[in-house]
Amino acid sequence: MLTGMQIAVIGGDARQLEIIRKLTELDARLSLIGFEQLDHAFTGAVKEKMDEVDFSNMDAMILPVAGTNLEGQVETIFSDEKVFLTEEILSKTPEHCTIFSGISNAYLNGITKQTKKNLVQLFARDDVAIYNSIPTVEGTIMMAIQHTDFTIHGSNVAILGLGRCGMSLARAFHTLGAKVKVGARKTEHLARITEMGVTPFYLNDLQKEVGDTDILINTIPYLIVNAEVISKMPVQTLIIDIASKPGGTDFRYAEKRGIKALLAPSLPGIVAPKTAGQILADVLSQLLHELYAKRKEKE
Amino acid sequence: MLTGMQIAVIGGDARQLEIIRKLTELDARLSLIGFEQLDHAFTGAVKEKMDEVDFSNMDAMILPVAGTNLEGQVETIFSDEKVFLTEEILSKTPEHCTIFSGISNAYLNGITKQTKKNLVQLFARDDVAIYNSIPTVEGTIMMAIQHTDFTIHGSNVAILGLGRCGMSLARAFHTLGAKVKVGARKTEHLARITEMGVTPFYLNDLQKEVGDTDILINTIPYLIVNAEVISKMPVQTLIIDIASKPGGTDFRYAEKRGIKALLAPSLPGIVAPKTAGQILADVLSQLLHELYAKRKEKE
Amino acid sequence: MLTGMQIAVIGGDARQLEIIRKLTELDARLSLIGFEQLDHAFTGAVKEKMDEVDFSNMDAMILPVAGTNLEGQVETIFSDEKVFLTEEILSKTPEHCTIFSGISNAYLNGITKQTKKNLVQLFARDDVAIYNSIPTVEGTIMMAIQHTDFTIHGSNVAILGLGRCGMSLARAFHTLGAKVKVGARKTEHLARITEMGVTPFYLNDLQKEVGDTDILINTIPYLIVNAEVISKMPVQTLIIDIASKPGGTDFRYAEKRGIKALLAPSLPGIVAPKTAGQILADVLSQLLHELYAKRKEKE
Amino acid sequence: MLTGMQIAVIGGDARQLEIIRKLTELDARLSLIGFEQLDHAFTGAVKEKMDEVDFSNMDAMILPVAGTNLEGQVETIFSDEKVFLTEEILSKTPEHCTIFSGISNAYLNGITKQTKKNLVQLFARDDVAIYNSIPTVEGTIMMAIQHTDFTIHGSNVAILGLGRCGMSLARAFHTLGAKVKVGARKTEHLARITEMGVTPFYLNDLQKEVGDTDILINTIPYLIVNAEVISKMPVQTLIIDIASKPGGTDFRYAEKRGIKALLAPSLPGIVAPKTAGQILADVLSQLLHELYAKRKEKE
Repeated sequence: MLTGMQIAVIGGDARQLEIIRKLTELDARLSLIGFEQLDHAFTGAVKEKMDEVDFSNMDAMILPVAGTNLEGQVETIFSDEKVFLTEEILSKTPEHCTIFSGISNAYLNGITKQTKKNLVQLFARDDVAIYNSIPTVEGTIMMAIQHTDFTIHGSNVAILGLGRCGMSLARAFHTLGAKVKVGARKTEHLARITEMGVTPFYLNDLQKEVGDTDILINTIPYLIVNAEVISKMPVQTLIIDIASKPGGTDFRYAEKRGIKALLAPSLPGIVAPKTAGQILADVLSQLLHELYAKRKEKE
Repeated sequence: MLTGMQIAVIGGDARQLEIIRKLTELDARLSLIGFEQLDHAFTGAVKEKMDEVDFSNMDAMILPVAGTNLEGQVETIFSDEKVFLTEEILSKTPEHCTIFSGISNAYLNGITKQTKKNLVQLFARDDVAIYNSIPTVEGTIMMAIQHTDFTIHGSNVAILGLGRCGMSLARAFHTLGAKVKVGARKTEHLARITEMGVTPFYLNDLQKEVGDTDILINTIPYLIVNAEVISKMPVQTLIIDIASKPGGTDFRYAEKRGIKALLAPSLPGIVAPKTAGQILADVLSQLLHELYAKRKEKE
Repeated sequence: MLTGMQIAVIGGDARQLEIIRKLTELDARLSLIGFEQLDHAFTGAVKEKMDEVDFSNMDAMILPVAGTNLEGQVETIFSDEKVFLTEEILSKTPEHCTIFSGISNAYLNGITKQTKKNLVQLFARDDVAIYNSIPTVEGTIMMAIQHTDFTIHGSNVAILGLGRCGMSLARAFHTLGAKVKVGARKTEHLARITEMGVTPFYLNDLQKEVGDTDILINTIPYLIVNAEVISKMPVQTLIIDIASKPGGTDFRYAEKRGIKALLAPSLPGIVAPKTAGQILADVLSQLLHELYAKRKEKE
Repeated sequence: MLTGMQIAVIGGDARQLEIIRKLTELDARLSLIGFEQLDHAFTGAVKEKMDEVDFSNMDAMILPVAGTNLEGQVETIFSDEKVFLTEEILSKTPEHCTIFSGISNAYLNGITKQTKKNLVQLFARDDVAIYNSIPTVEGTIMMAIQHTDFTIHGSNVAILGLGRCGMSLARAFHTLGAKVKVGARKTEHLARITEMGVTPFYLNDLQKEVGDTDILINTIPYLIVNAEVISKMPVQTLIIDIASKPGGTDFRYAEKRGIKALLAPSLPGIVAPKTAGQILADVLSQLLHELYAKRKEKE
């Protein structure tokens, strides 16, 4: 339980509702900022405006996945008002107040550094990335079904990278009956790919390997699916790039060759906002429990 | 090879193109009726109008999946002209000429009976139904992803029936990480469900089993998901009914209770027309080979 | 519950103990014949000798899997005394008394026919065969590991038949990473094999298909792995034949060619007697419930 | 190709034969020491005695998996003569000569350090450990089948650790139909376990988690399955410990409680020596190629 812990939830989309639900269940006291239009009421959570909040005893602040924009504005789906997070606001919080967001940027890094606040980027955590690989995989499956005129079952699928998403993708497409091969560089990755029952290949051989590919899924965040690679693919290949923006594909060249290449948006919040919210809520509540235990220890 | 076999392909959608491709590869001679707007040319296939065709040496006629409508009209995606199949036309064909369609109706049954033609309904074959279960499963997965805000992974999925589609659905949703249970009546089906690693239940207990269902998929073609069953489901449940029209769900009552219930259209032709066409082309070419062998034998 | 039902359990091995456990839990009254050396006592079950038993109100008799031998003797692992089932004994039971065994033979068929008793052969039931396929698969896996110097993972495994055992074998060896192909004759079986993600082949092509086989598993109960087929196999191939005696392999020729060929014994009772007993106990208790309901109805 | 490379293969068991086969195929020149009784001849490989060998141009030496014993003796299955590897022998080899073994010990570390030779322990490599997890898993499955009277399918299996073997074990037992839970400490491991479709638990809760375990498989190389944990298990539980000697189980206490606990030997060389040899041969040939390329570069 997080009884008595004071937490501000600032802005965000449907995913934040799962966080609010979980934290109120754990008996935390919540200030909801940027939720005026939210119909649902949660016991223990009060809707407030930024300038009405007492930050002096705030134990934690929870921002949306995107954090702030470069001007400090926080996205608020459930409010028409503009909400900004500033250095001034942070400086009102107690020393131990921890700031949580999905990712960060120069602005957010700047104000937290300036005010000596601990900033936790949830999306940089391996566990969050692996849990998020589950909705990402399902979104990728959906895209593969929507954008081809053949079944995944029986098709040649090449996956680039055996990281946190790559392994989940390999398992799912394999079990759906695709002929999967996975490209990697590390020898232990090539071994794991083999053990998983799919075909490994060395990424240096990528150009040689794409000649019969029906669907290519890239998870590697640098330009690996370049013009040379694309020029070796059949023209009917579908490229789905799920690496962080701007992806690892030469989209301009793919278009020129008439190959359909899609840069997948961040899929978890789109295909399964409830699950995506629960993932964040679960990890957050665990981290808050640790903070809570530390604080109790000090007292 | 089907060298010298004379076949009329009458109307249809993208799936027929795979059939045309395959049969021309096998060296059959094709009359394409209702394909004026088709750009692609196939060696050995001639576009013709119904009244120009010489039916006197036609070995087989291939209709679209739907056969004809009740007035005898054949659907033609690649033509603006109306194409009709009549008793008169059939009577011009030789005795051994076989008629292929996906399904049939009173009209088509009537004219083939009257003219003593052998009518083969491909969709009534077990092998076609099982091959088609593959794109059907992928379409169902797509619908499940699109119409829920949670992942298939970790969700409670109930599947009704362990027939030709039910078994494929059970396997796929299980491997995607859902907690699957499958309802059946036959004791050997309950045994097979157990062996597959998913949870069996007896369909008589359906009402008791749906209390925690996130997604219910019905494959049984009579009213099994009735008002009593629906009244026991959580209101967030998604019902996907893939049984032939009109499905096995009381859609009216589901709507009244606010439960989303979808009658899936025939999915193979929609989500994977190329694969769906190849399935038909493969089975057709096998059946035509048998006809061909018989005819050669007689000669 | 089977309260008040009177059942004789006659002879058998460890599997019968699971049956006794289950039936006493369901409150049946049991006469245990041929269990003198059994240490464990079950409430509601009395050890008796054949000539002491009052058969006049016996509702059912449960024989071991093997039934009797051709002289009427019943195998008794837990007794040194010889136990015989005779026409005379059966004639003492009431008309409705049902006899259960795994399999039957001329003797058992004869005495039950003569006394007009209903004989239920559990092993002839599809559900029992499918449940039993689970321990059979595990026994086959064990044999494959023991009798080769390579891993199942990555090896070429050919399975003959997609029946009750064949389907279970195909799934298990596929998921363990073998390259599995399954031979069948029915077109719907070839379709199902494809859907399962393994490679189908037509049994008529068996000779052509075994050229690279590492492990061949036969489930077909007639001479299909004949000398011609064996002559096409690599000499290192391991043949495991799980079809009922005498199997479907020309063992003499295999030995001549130096190919190791094993006729698997009935595996469930050997590799997992407890599970095998539970399978029989579950099906038996269901069948006894039906008998019980019928009898109550009549009263 | 390794044309012209000079390599000594010293002692070992059937696994070395796969290495010899592979390296001669790659056109290396081999001195086989401790292989007098080997019938088979390999082109490019010469059987020699230790004191006849010219070590002055030796590019690499390949020892058995075990390396040497503490007196420097090398195990030789194919020879009755005692073979020793000494500092003196190593000092005769050129500076670049690389020594390969599976594992090492104080003696082998000592003489290689003294003579400034590069010693590569293949079993310390992640890729070798992951490839070896495949035969290890199959050996564990075999032990689980042999030492229980129930099927893996449907049983409760707890696996400790999600390392190189743990992940392979989890996948295999899950796909065989067991109800698998995996204990780990790292949050990213708990996430991956969830994604794999099996149940995660935190190792700190181990005592609470073993109350219904049928089979417990340990991969963690320190005393984790201690008396307190064992005292919470059902007495029928089977413990299979595959961690390196002396394992992570209190075997003395398990015996006292009447719980069967097995310390698995190194399984790959036992259940699948050919595969185990091929794994080593593949990795070795890759490493030798890299050495070869380096040497060519220098020339």
